[in-house]
Amino acid sequence: MPDAVVSLLTDFGYADAYVGVMTGVIASRCDARVIDLTHGVDPGDITSAAYLLGTSWRYFPPGTVHLSVVDPGVGTDRGILAAEVDGHRFVAPDNGLLADVLATVGETDTVVRVSRPDLHLPKVSQTFHGRDVFAPIAAAIASGEPIAKLGEPATDWVRLGNREPQTDAGRIEGEVVYIDRFGNLITSIHAIHLAEATRPTVQLADRAVTGLAPSYESVEPGELLAIIGSTDRLEISINGANAAQELGVATGEPVQVTLGA
Amino acid sequence: MPDAVVSLLTDFGYADAYVGVMTGVIASRCDARVIDLTHGVDPGDITSAAYLLGTSWRYFPPGTVHLSVVDPGVGTDRGILAAEVDGHRFVAPDNGLLADVLATVGETDTVVRVSRPDLHLPKVSQTFHGRDVFAPIAAAIASGEPIAKLGEPATDWVRLGNREPQTDAGRIEGEVVYIDRFGNLITSIHAIHLAEATRPTVQLADRAVTGLAPSYESVEPGELLAIIGSTDRLEISINGANAAQELGVATGEPVQVTLGA
Amino acid sequence: MPDAVVSLLTDFGYADAYVGVMTGVIASRCDARVIDLTHGVDPGDITSAAYLLGTSWRYFPPGTVHLSVVDPGVGTDRGILAAEVDGHRFVAPDNGLLADVLATVGETDTVVRVSRPDLHLPKVSQTFHGRDVFAPIAAAIASGEPIAKLGEPATDWVRLGNREPQTDAGRIEGEVVYIDRFGNLITSIHAIHLAEATRPTVQLADRAVTGLAPSYESVEPGELLAIIGSTDRLEISINGANAAQELGVATGEPVQVTLGA
Repeated sequence: MPDAVVSLLTDFGYADAYVGVMTGVIASRCDARVIDLTHGVDPGDITSAAYLLGTSWRYFPPGTVHLSVVDPGVGTDRGILAAEVDGHRFVAPDNGLLADVLATVGETDTVVRVSRPDLHLPKVSQTFHGRDVFAPIAAAIASGEPIAKLGEPATDWVRLGNREPQTDAGRIEGEVVYIDRFGNLITSIHAIHLAEATRPTVQLADRAVTGLAPSYESVEPGELLAIIGSTDRLEISINGANAAQELGVATGEPVQVTLGA
Repeated sequence: MPDAVVSLLTDFGYADAYVGVMTGVIASRCDARVIDLTHGVDPGDITSAAYLLGTSWRYFPPGTVHLSVVDPGVGTDRGILAAEVDGHRFVAPDNGLLADVLATVGETDTVVRVSRPDLHLPKVSQTFHGRDVFAPIAAAIASGEPIAKLGEPATDWVRLGNREPQTDAGRIEGEVVYIDRFGNLITSIHAIHLAEATRPTVQLADRAVTGLAPSYESVEPGELLAIIGSTDRLEISINGANAAQELGVATGEPVQVTLGA
Repeated sequence: MPDAVVSLLTDFGYADAYVGVMTGVIASRCDARVIDLTHGVDPGDITSAAYLLGTSWRYFPPGTVHLSVVDPGVGTDRGILAAEVDGHRFVAPDNGLLADVLATVGETDTVVRVSRPDLHLPKVSQTFHGRDVFAPIAAAIASGEPIAKLGEPATDWVRLGNREPQTDAGRIEGEVVYIDRFGNLITSIHAIHLAEATRPTVQLADRAVTGLAPSYESVEPGELLAIIGSTDRLEISINGANAAQELGVATGEPVQVTLGA
């Protein structure tokens, strides 16, 4: 049987040893194969972390334990969620991080509020539950502990603000929900919203582009383009340059689409 | 038997292939599971690397081989140390990197000055002993080579300057020893120094805060706090912001604590 | 039998989940041990990526699958190459990324133009072939699929501009081909070009240094030095500082060597 897989998503960055130590704790307690989803989330940016987790987990093997720690509330009484959704397992603070994953939770899935101090490290610090609480719980799940035994069933959890696009008479109002390292502006508008459009016009930050491009290089270098990206969302990019920097745009920037004829 | 674990700590960063190549050399010579402690140490910052290693290694499985390479003296006649401390194995240049680990070395532990050119890669460069010398030695240890067979017993090694806090009549004088990616200011003052204090006042950079916080969010956003952090040291933070940036503070900044009533 | 090794080289960076997702796809399809060569290549910098791959792959175990994705042409009709060179396997877009590796391709090696849509993920996006196309192909190779079965033999591929140094009457004209995180200026001039020189003088950016140093610390802190680096190339460095920043030099900067007596 291949080793269990644990995916790690944090805002701990790459300068410190926090991620390495969490991985050491996991290795101390099970033989899982640890895969770093990313640790480059901006400190405390739960919304971006939820987006990254929500658009990534289905590409991992069934049974993967997805441990996500963006935890500005560490040391407070914020809860911990564990869930089994579609055969994948999740652990995270109850602060919205699992919001996108749990939006699709079904009848055969399980969500619990974790209460298993027996699994924690012998000494739990006030500031690093990733090491003292979350890593041991993830290791226990990877070792076979059922989600249902981690705590009482949860029926409510922290959700993130509704960012669904508004559609009205051939117009869609959305926003930039994520910006990646290339400066691609990923929006809340999904391909399905554009299904009827033959040549939509996309507007943001006083710029407009008409039509969807099949690739970055289908326009001239330095030119703006709109494209359906890898998470099936509308993205706005510049061929060979960083659109976020060039346009001076941040997450939350409004995006309008006119569907056209 | 599970694979041996090798932890890697370097200042090689993430832009180049140095770490990947070291890991390739290790994979060429043994089946170890490699865990990156961090490679984001500032170039040549031995003191921070020693802090990170010293506060991390006990969270790894017994028997882990901790390979640490921050090596501005590569190509000179600086020595190489290997050690077995409390069941963990270590390899590093003799430049202070192991100072915190070896501060606790006991009678049953082993420290040697490595001299095993037979283990090196066939060609040793002048500038990348991480690849040509250290990775092969770590792989040999992970494959079962005893520390004692790597060289002659070492009784002396490079130590780092004493940064122990000074205590005097209800006052403690310490300093900032490490700053993490969140801007948390980690000090040389340990929880044990504060054991008698009910409401200590912590001063640094013309700012003061009284009392120890139980969590970051126990104070208002943007407010300064003092807290016992995850390495049992006094830390100074700002809830939701980067204290190092906000206060303009670097490593070495003096910190005073008045123990109070 | 130990797990297959897959090395990953991309320009996807560390802020997003792109690399984690690719690794998840690989883990879904095989039990390979994934080693990150680096993901810190500047966006679209094929030349640097080719340099990093070309100077790294021989340090991995024979049979390693080297998957490299720097792919500004994603979604266009740019081809995909797979190759077996000297017992190592490679997959990458046909855009120059494999140029350095294929420069040494021999009669017993194999290069093919990949055409195996049956291996792709069920849905292929326009912008992320690393996930949808390249990771599944690498996983297939790691699982035993022979390179020769991935497509038709390729006899031509994208090459990079010739950056061989020019030698003339005791003078060598080269250039800076790569700059690492330490600011070391790695040149196109190889040790073999300097074999006859006893005390070469190296000039760049109005600075000159005579003689080759045995180590960084063999000159005073802050002083310029020339040294044969870990890829057997002439490098220009400053002891304890970042030469690229101090000299204001970028890739492509001309370097002259006078061989001397």
